Amino acid sequence: MDPVERGRMLLAVADALDNARGELVPLADAETSLGEGRLVGELARASGQFRLFADVLREGSYLRATIDHADPTTTPPRPDLRSVLEPVGPVAVFAASNFPFAFGVVGGDTASALAAGCPVVVKAHPGHPELSRRLAEVVHSVLEPGVFAMVEGLDAGRALVTHPDIRAVGFTGSVTGGRALFDLASGRPDPIPFHGELGSVNPVVVTRAAAAARPREIADGLVASFTLGVGQFCTKPGIVLIPAGSGLETVIADRLAGGGRMLTPAIAEGFHQGVRRRADRIIAGRQQDGPDAEPVLFLADVDFLAARPEATEEVFGPACLLVHYTDDDLPRAVAALPGSLTATVHAEPADIAALAPVVAALRERAGRLVWNGWPTGVAVSWAQHHGGPWPATTSAAHTSVGAHAIARWLRPVCYQDCPPAVLPRALREDNPLGLPRRVDGAWTDLEC
Amino acid sequence: MDPVERGRMLLAVADALDNARGELVPLADAETSLGEGRLVGELARASGQFRLFADVLREGSYLRATIDHADPTTTPPRPDLRSVLEPVGPVAVFAASNFPFAFGVVGGDTASALAAGCPVVVKAHPGHPELSRRLAEVVHSVLEPGVFAMVEGLDAGRALVTHPDIRAVGFTGSVTGGRALFDLASGRPDPIPFHGELGSVNPVVVTRAAAAARPREIADGLVASFTLGVGQFCTKPGIVLIPAGSGLETVIADRLAGGGRMLTPAIAEGFHQGVRRRADRIIAGRQQDGPDAEPVLFLADVDFLAARPEATEEVFGPACLLVHYTDDDLPRAVAALPGSLTATVHAEPADIAALAPVVAALRERAGRLVWNGWPTGVAVSWAQHHGGPWPATTSAAHTSVGAHAIARWLRPVCYQDCPPAVLPRALREDNPLGLPRRVDGAWTDLEC
Repeated sequence: MDPVERGRMLLAVADALDNARGELVPLADAETSLGEGRLVGELARASGQFRLFADVLREGSYLRATIDHADPTTTPPRPDLRSVLEPVGPVAVFAASNFPFAFGVVGGDTASALAAGCPVVVKAHPGHPELSRRLAEVVHSVLEPGVFAMVEGLDAGRALVTHPDIRAVGFTGSVTGGRALFDLASGRPDPIPFHGELGSVNPVVVTRAAAAARPREIADGLVASFTLGVGQFCTKPGIVLIPAGSGLETVIADRLAGGGRMLTPAIAEGFHQGVRRRADRIIAGRQQDGPDAEPVLFLADVDFLAARPEATEEVFGPACLLVHYTDDDLPRAVAALPGSLTATVHAEPADIAALAPVVAALRERAGRLVWNGWPTGVAVSWAQHHGGPWPATTSAAHTSVGAHAIARWLRPVCYQDCPPAVLPRALREDNPLGLPRRVDGAWTDLEC
Repeated sequence: MDPVERGRMLLAVADALDNARGELVPLADAETSLGEGRLVGELARASGQFRLFADVLREGSYLRATIDHADPTTTPPRPDLRSVLEPVGPVAVFAASNFPFAFGVVGGDTASALAAGCPVVVKAHPGHPELSRRLAEVVHSVLEPGVFAMVEGLDAGRALVTHPDIRAVGFTGSVTGGRALFDLASGRPDPIPFHGELGSVNPVVVTRAAAAARPREIADGLVASFTLGVGQFCTKPGIVLIPAGSGLETVIADRLAGGGRMLTPAIAEGFHQGVRRRADRIIAGRQQDGPDAEPVLFLADVDFLAARPEATEEVFGPACLLVHYTDDDLPRAVAALPGSLTATVHAEPADIAALAPVVAALRERAGRLVWNGWPTGVAVSWAQHHGGPWPATTSAAHTSVGAHAIARWLRPVCYQDCPPAVLPRALREDNPLGLPRRVDGAWTDLEC
């Protein structure tokens, strides 16, 4: 299919998803307990992603079409060279538990891979099997046969990653599961790219001035963010560095609220185990069991953060580790933080100059730097980046959200002295697709 | 350093290399036997690569600077999001044997990583130690301390790939060596990207009409290409599919010429072993030993190509496998070809329509499609792509030659609602670097 046909296909999927909302949202709620309000919004985001990629195809610069005409004056003479990004081939997508629409069977990995021109085989998440099957039916109802398929079960997933015809993998899930599949993909006789989004603690630094100026605003924002969706967001703030002696931990503890049914009993049990491992650090909330989770706050110091590897592991659910820092040991605290999807700073304007080394260290460790805000909620746009250094992802150069997510499923092919009938339409001299192209070094046909 | 300063640094390295030509070229020739003429050209290419990346920095779109202003009308309201590509951190570069300048200590990997803003540690190739040390001195003479270093020896190389501070690897060399280092990089507690260019057989398909129309031109071109530099090019055509009954093999055999001293005794011994393994297929040339190599032609049929895995392994040196195909088994022959840097077609205009499935299969297997030409000689330009599916490279989405080689050493960072004093200059509202940027979906400040 050319990009125009693929764009129509993506819009048809978007419409089919929106049209099935009345059926899909209750099905998702029954299997995930995420609530109808949140799920209506998430389905809109999922269909919106298909529409964004239709825009990306229409705009066309994602193809990186480049033409260097022959130059007989160079030594040696340069031939005519034309390159464009082409689909890598069939892609395997591992759907996530926590976003049954936006990172599920019809999530951003599926939308971006179909947009790139790659057939997709999704491995459904066992947390919402009925919804997954229904979503696959909706997709099948509008796509040609052979473009999309869904499989279920761990064995099928492993078989996908090692199948000779699969050329790349998208994954959203745990560090343990992601690492095992990454190792399979990298260990193949012919290694393939594995674009995995794994675990992230999304650190927050609150300056002394910010803690003094707006303690209640920060506490309210943090509690809302780390308990959103029962703490089951990839971007949940899991470690918050607060000034020792500021008393901010008490303000936060006093405002603790939220909680509810977790996605699956197994995920709830994982949360309870994470809380138990840090039981001696609890300052608000309690050890729990069963399918529900209440928010829990831990408190520690920088020595704990720097010395105990489990201190920087993600606890999936409504738990947050506060870390008291002094002005002297803030750099050491930041240096102990692992790679994350996001890093957040709460600061006052007068803090900025002195904070520069901390900001530089956070930039090295995160894919998105949030200022005086909260990391949960990931807008789908051109500038968005949802990625980050290990263990946040297995490929920090790529994003799984936003327009650039399509780049994961493309590879360049260069055509040397090829006649027009052999060239893809994207590279023909008369530019029949009207694409923005770099010709002899300068851009042409770009919407400026 | 900002891009302007880095551009100046790259130009200073280029000038220093050119100024040292009188000393560097004889040193390279003494250690590689590649000949002064070729080495003068290669050094010019190496310094030219530094100048190309200075152009890339000046043009600025490689940074992918993107701004989406806040939009309070969306649900939820969208914050201000700005993203730009930033250097990944220190890069390890493994220099190649066969291009002591252009893929060596000062090769494209080093130039592109320095251009990206990454410090570089090169592991020198043992085939030209004195040249490598002198090149490192030349680079040191113009760069600030801490930006560049060189190490020698296999142990040092392994230590580099597993060092916690190294964030990415560039490699040019053998499948065996590259695979071992790729496995080390992928097996780290924190896996890092390994951009390796390994082995490539660079298949050629000659149609029956082309073989009939211009047998001597094709034979001359092939012999010149596969014996260039004593057959020690990554893009050497190693497998040529020719029509059975065309007699083209005799025309080629009659024109066999070339050969000479190989890069190192070990490389020569590897070539002789490769020839011995296919001794029963020799139709011109002979089994050899010692430091020199003469050209050798093998002939086989499609059954041999499809059934014997060693048939599709690269023989590094002046050897070429001709494969007789019939019209019936050409698709099977093409399907048996491994991933390659290049694929070449020699055809007449009337062939093009019927050849479409063959061309499609070659595109899937190669990074560059050459029409009625030869793959050796890789122009350094915007449209060039020097990469390809495994085993040609470990990351088919990337090129090691041309402007886009810089992309291997960059990762996005997104800034959400950050004040101007926190933003990198590339993302400030007034665009102080004059960069092309995508703002609210449309390009601005682009040279069109």
